[in-house]
Amino acid sequence: MSSTQSTLEHAALQRIQHEGLRQKIMSADEAAALIQPGFNVGMSGFTGAGYPKVVPQALARRIEAAHAAGQPFRIGLWTGASTAPELDGALAKVEGIDMRLPYQSDPTVRAKINAGHMQYVDIHLSHVAQFVWFGFLGHLNVAVIEVAGVLPDGSLIPSTSVGNNKTWIEQADHVILEVNAWQNPGLQGMHDVYYGTALPPHRQPIMMTEPGQRIGEATLRCDPAKVIAVVPTHASDRNSAFAQPDAQSQAIAGHIIEFLQHEVAKGRLPKELLPLQSGVGNIANAVLAGLNEGPFENLTAYTEVLQDGMLDMLKSGKLRTASCTALSLSPEAAAYFNTHIDEFRERIVIRPQEISNHPEIIRRLGLIAMNAMIECDIYGNVNSTHLMGSAIMNGIGGSGDFARNAYLSIFMSPSMAKGGSISCIVPMASHVDHTEHDVQVLVTEQGLADLRGLAPVQRAKCIIERCAHPDYRDALNEYLERARHKATGQHTPHDLTQALSWHQRYVETGSMKP
Amino acid sequence: MSSTQSTLEHAALQRIQHEGLRQKIMSADEAAALIQPGFNVGMSGFTGAGYPKVVPQALARRIEAAHAAGQPFRIGLWTGASTAPELDGALAKVEGIDMRLPYQSDPTVRAKINAGHMQYVDIHLSHVAQFVWFGFLGHLNVAVIEVAGVLPDGSLIPSTSVGNNKTWIEQADHVILEVNAWQNPGLQGMHDVYYGTALPPHRQPIMMTEPGQRIGEATLRCDPAKVIAVVPTHASDRNSAFAQPDAQSQAIAGHIIEFLQHEVAKGRLPKELLPLQSGVGNIANAVLAGLNEGPFENLTAYTEVLQDGMLDMLKSGKLRTASCTALSLSPEAAAYFNTHIDEFRERIVIRPQEISNHPEIIRRLGLIAMNAMIECDIYGNVNSTHLMGSAIMNGIGGSGDFARNAYLSIFMSPSMAKGGSISCIVPMASHVDHTEHDVQVLVTEQGLADLRGLAPVQRAKCIIERCAHPDYRDALNEYLERARHKATGQHTPHDLTQALSWHQRYVETGSMKP
Repeated sequence: MSSTQSTLEHAALQRIQHEGLRQKIMSADEAAALIQPGFNVGMSGFTGAGYPKVVPQALARRIEAAHAAGQPFRIGLWTGASTAPELDGALAKVEGIDMRLPYQSDPTVRAKINAGHMQYVDIHLSHVAQFVWFGFLGHLNVAVIEVAGVLPDGSLIPSTSVGNNKTWIEQADHVILEVNAWQNPGLQGMHDVYYGTALPPHRQPIMMTEPGQRIGEATLRCDPAKVIAVVPTHASDRNSAFAQPDAQSQAIAGHIIEFLQHEVAKGRLPKELLPLQSGVGNIANAVLAGLNEGPFENLTAYTEVLQDGMLDMLKSGKLRTASCTALSLSPEAAAYFNTHIDEFRERIVIRPQEISNHPEIIRRLGLIAMNAMIECDIYGNVNSTHLMGSAIMNGIGGSGDFARNAYLSIFMSPSMAKGGSISCIVPMASHVDHTEHDVQVLVTEQGLADLRGLAPVQRAKCIIERCAHPDYRDALNEYLERARHKATGQHTPHDLTQALSWHQRYVETGSMKP
Repeated sequence: MSSTQSTLEHAALQRIQHEGLRQKIMSADEAAALIQPGFNVGMSGFTGAGYPKVVPQALARRIEAAHAAGQPFRIGLWTGASTAPELDGALAKVEGIDMRLPYQSDPTVRAKINAGHMQYVDIHLSHVAQFVWFGFLGHLNVAVIEVAGVLPDGSLIPSTSVGNNKTWIEQADHVILEVNAWQNPGLQGMHDVYYGTALPPHRQPIMMTEPGQRIGEATLRCDPAKVIAVVPTHASDRNSAFAQPDAQSQAIAGHIIEFLQHEVAKGRLPKELLPLQSGVGNIANAVLAGLNEGPFENLTAYTEVLQDGMLDMLKSGKLRTASCTALSLSPEAAAYFNTHIDEFRERIVIRPQEISNHPEIIRRLGLIAMNAMIECDIYGNVNSTHLMGSAIMNGIGGSGDFARNAYLSIFMSPSMAKGGSISCIVPMASHVDHTEHDVQVLVTEQGLADLRGLAPVQRAKCIIERCAHPDYRDALNEYLERARHKATGQHTPHDLTQALSWHQRYVETGSMKP
């Protein structure tokens, strides 16, 4: 071990202030040896933040060795949401995952799922914790949780995400902790872990009425007797860079800002809007960059993931407070955050995902929900998860939690993908994650379709005119006309022989264009 | 006017105890004359209960006369949910409805929508009131509300449904009341109208933790100055008969009861279960009949519509308390209810539909949600609204409110329809109302598929084996195998050239069978 490494681990050691837990310090390999084939393992991690950095890789080595020796070794892997190559990637590469839930965005995992080598259960992120408590997903054998520190009483300072950690710690037979000294000790006090949940019929109202309100505890409770290993680490989060907003995402942002201004003018939104929810990714980030330059002041956010765009809005003061379950920052934003953490501590609340995504809270607060989509059809059904009907991309994540219960449910995408060979507006969505009943506004760089109060054929005309790319507009209008001519009913007219033909044409020719 | 009629109207007169409102008594024709072309009209009525009985027919006559004179006359018609021939049927027959929301089940309305003569916006029933408050659906000009009586202070005793009446009365410029002396005066005290709603960001928690809890007021507030007409009536609700449970629905009920017993045995449900929600119709009614003969005691219900089956369970004592927004009873059950109303008053709570269907309450109480479906696909996506992808049947109603937020989300249907020419399990649903993420259990007379924790291909095998009719099982397995062979991804393998071919075959040949 190098002296640098030793210094770093010393730093981690200082974070472990509970004497009993210090006794359980061991190497990642020793900790991984405590995970047996067939276990369900609940790991921390949400959008590349706060995931365990070393035990999963040690486990992958152990699995690889077992496979080399002809022994089967696979686990069920449960997380908050997506993680990173060191976790999902490492375990998928060695065929170590039998069943994955509730969300992933890893290229190796995706490839394994789409090759049929891994089971994947794609679950609304607000449903996961309760399904485990209900006993719907089976027994959780062990939790592997990254924390930023352990307090003298054994309580845990959460890392850059909370996700399902509270549930994993409470539900697992045993707990393995990674104490990551790379994470800022100043995170302490930023979290709000709600311990008021219960199983029905004993549930009580969740008494939150403001995005920034704290209703829980700053640390995770954890019975030290359940902890079977403590592994000191010193490693950064995934911290992926965001693309600079391009002309398309700036156009999308512009349409949304114009729409929100119109809603304020009509008296349908207060001038400080309502709490913002923003999905993950470059387009969402660009919309936030647009809002940061936009006319609205004194905003709040109640969202799942706090990205660079939202951090910039906190910096500029446009955003007063932000609630989330994870920080997903670029390396530059993470560096800024870590050097200015005292300015953010009171203004950012990191919660369990069962609270950040809770239907009760989302509906009560009345969010403006903005989420990306893969495609939508002319009637407003949105596909967030599948390519060409069969292949998973990532998963539904929290988009359904937010879209169904928001004040305004907005979905956005460029009008075309793959250099124009794919239209994101299609005759019929090849998979539906958000039905026509849950989609109020669609936005592409072409424009914004306000679907509120429109019947299906009215919606179709609006979506084609406002959102479709001109290269596909005529073909969509032709589809609609043919469907109206041929269909067995005029409510949502479809020509079933052609409804999925655009996707099939793409599969066969590499383009949806005729 | 006959003397009988005069006696009946005298009875209605006695129900109008507010002097100022007595001054506004007029005929249905006079009241209907106050409704102008282009108005949005919010009428009472939910599942054939508590709808206005005479003004809509008078309005239909007025519209018919206008059309005969070459004058355009159509209205926007908003209700709680479905109504009856005297309302939906009468207005649709004369082409009097331009836009209908949020739910219908009337044959004439359905035919007009499917002929493209009427716009229909199919909305989650929990969303309707708030969308109107938000200003998303336009201005409400007049409300036409059936009540069981008017108290001296002008407050209104609701009828057999509450639905959206509170919102219509508060949001409309003017109110027309029908005071129906046929309705039992003993309804007074059975309702619970919650006045704690607000627009975000001012919303507060709804402090309800038990199905039978009362959190509001027994009557509807109504400013007498807004009332422009009071029309006495004496007419029964739709009160449609239910079919006797047949062998198929009894088999479905049997599978559900067996499953619930299994869940109790596994410790995943308490022995008195959790509050029941049951959709509308004969199968739902049969399941309740099964539960009434079943092993569970001391049950509760938190549902949208209270049907005969639930009334029987209240009679037998199996059901302790039931919360709903409407009573939808057969003539026999209505007669029993009306002669024994004192036994039911404390045990039935009739609420606004924004509360009966509220995601916050549904999630907190942890309902067992049982809803009918038209079809589902092999991956568990459910179609509740459309026939062959294009034609509307009824609408989504509250099924989405319940399925998304329930403890257990169960969908049920016979495995075949139209004498076997339609399989209710299909390769790909021709319309999706409840996505794979929201469907946990599927039941047909063939069996029950427990989809919890299963990935898509696992779900497909389970659904085909347990739920599909043997006549279609081989063809479904062949589809799955071909899809797995051809698909671009193995997560949710589809053969896009064949995914909708069963529906198309039905359209062309009258049968899904090859």
